Amino acid sequence: MALQTAIKTYHHRVEEQLKHSLVHNSIEPLLQDAMRYALFNGGKRVRPLLVYLVNQLLNGDISKADPAACAIECIHSYSLVHDDLPAMDDDDLRRGKPTCHIAFDEATAILAGDALQCFAFELLTTADNNAETKLQMISVLAKASGDRGMVAGQAFDLSHVDKALTLEQLKQMHAHKTGALINASIELGYLSANCTDTSLKAALLAYGDAIGLAFQVKDDILDIEGDTQTLGKPQGSDLQQNKPTYPALLGMEGAKAKLDQLHQAAFDALRPFGDQGILLRQLADYIVRRTH
Amino acid sequence: MALQTAIKTYHHRVEEQLKHSLVHNSIEPLLQDAMRYALFNGGKRVRPLLVYLVNQLLNGDISKADPAACAIECIHSYSLVHDDLPAMDDDDLRRGKPTCHIAFDEATAILAGDALQCFAFELLTTADNNAETKLQMISVLAKASGDRGMVAGQAFDLSHVDKALTLEQLKQMHAHKTGALINASIELGYLSANCTDTSLKAALLAYGDAIGLAFQVKDDILDIEGDTQTLGKPQGSDLQQNKPTYPALLGMEGAKAKLDQLHQAAFDALRPFGDQGILLRQLADYIVRRTH
Repeated sequence: MALQTAIKTYHHRVEEQLKHSLVHNSIEPLLQDAMRYALFNGGKRVRPLLVYLVNQLLNGDISKADPAACAIECIHSYSLVHDDLPAMDDDDLRRGKPTCHIAFDEATAILAGDALQCFAFELLTTADNNAETKLQMISVLAKASGDRGMVAGQAFDLSHVDKALTLEQLKQMHAHKTGALINASIELGYLSANCTDTSLKAALLAYGDAIGLAFQVKDDILDIEGDTQTLGKPQGSDLQQNKPTYPALLGMEGAKAKLDQLHQAAFDALRPFGDQGILLRQLADYIVRRTH
Repeated sequence: MALQTAIKTYHHRVEEQLKHSLVHNSIEPLLQDAMRYALFNGGKRVRPLLVYLVNQLLNGDISKADPAACAIECIHSYSLVHDDLPAMDDDDLRRGKPTCHIAFDEATAILAGDALQCFAFELLTTADNNAETKLQMISVLAKASGDRGMVAGQAFDLSHVDKALTLEQLKQMHAHKTGALINASIELGYLSANCTDTSLKAALLAYGDAIGLAFQVKDDILDIEGDTQTLGKPQGSDLQQNKPTYPALLGMEGAKAKLDQLHQAAFDALRPFGDQGILLRQLADYIVRRTH
């Protein structure tokens, strides 16, 4: 299977899974409309893709990866909804469409985000895995999402707008803000495959470190070199908000060299998998070469 | 043990547990300061108290109830932080102290709430119980907190300000907004005791239904009859915001009759426990008679 086929296949798979899972009755249907709006907003589904790719690389039963794929996307979606709020990044557009608090209202967006986070953990209790594995999944997702993971990264980011960051601080910020969920996706895929070879886990997490940061360096580059229509957000918005970025710290050429280096690190990490690692190698290519 | 002793004992116990559990290093210490501010804000710890009381009533090992007691309080605290936000209830004071977004800022309050929710689920993975029990706890807490529980109740509440509610709608709103977490506390206590007698669970949940609603009816009454200093929030604020309340729908006398009826229902539900139910009966008394 080529990466483009895998992307389509797993994109379709996680969309179907999410559609079927979010069908509860609620006394407030508008809340669930907002949750669906946030979930089905044209996202690339990179994190579920990683869950599935790792599950398959380790010869897992793919159906055991479904709840994890959905859960990680619920966490990602909730974080976007909250990040876009006026008190946070104050973005009206996300992928060319009105953000959740614009399409609904601020209160509904806050609550939809809250409910999506909660739903992620509920989903993991339903996985067709043994209880210990499910608990490990919940622990991995919680640690990656909270005050030592994604949320800490976002808080650090907000408290450092207009402040100079060292390269190490910038790296740490991204390791929390986006890297934590990327690596959680990989670990969830590993757990869903019932793999117990910790050297393979370490290799996969090293790959995750590399592509997680590459993803962000590429975002920084695209913010300067991309155009608004392709990006789905105003080009140059990071620059305008004086946010710390790799091009700002390293220059554009330095940032591109950093990207190449991370690309290579991702490849190196995959060596233990030999030819089997082709899809993850192609994913690294895709992250580095994408235009939006 | 008299109820006042139990309240003190378990209040102290959950505070100590929370203090010891929230000691992670984070790249953004301010975020954790805000989490602690939200958690240690002088709350009554009613939900942890319920977890412990039910655990003890069912002869459970109390240490197995600690993570659940902490988790339910993390969920409750996060919900208060988000409810107080300008886009939601827009409250500057909570228990006489500045709300989290006033003491810090809106972005930090949103993120501290997010991290507290996440932390609740992480805590439940650490309980000294078997894996199946822990998963049931996580499922109970998630269902009670999300789009079929507390968050749905809050969303329903916000979308019905200035709208007339029927008595049934008001009851449903409170069953979600506060009742869901009250009953989750009871079910977590039940699970922490490794009890499998579902008739006892049903009795306890009937008790929970009664005190959960009684708590809210009493709140509505206090909003009219209490004073600002004792309440820690402006007296009459529900009335001012034209929120639907029991006194508004039933008149003050009707609301007080409803409170008496719920008080009796709580007592009736506890019959299977005979004399052992004394602390839960006293808690029902406390909820009904409190002055703030």
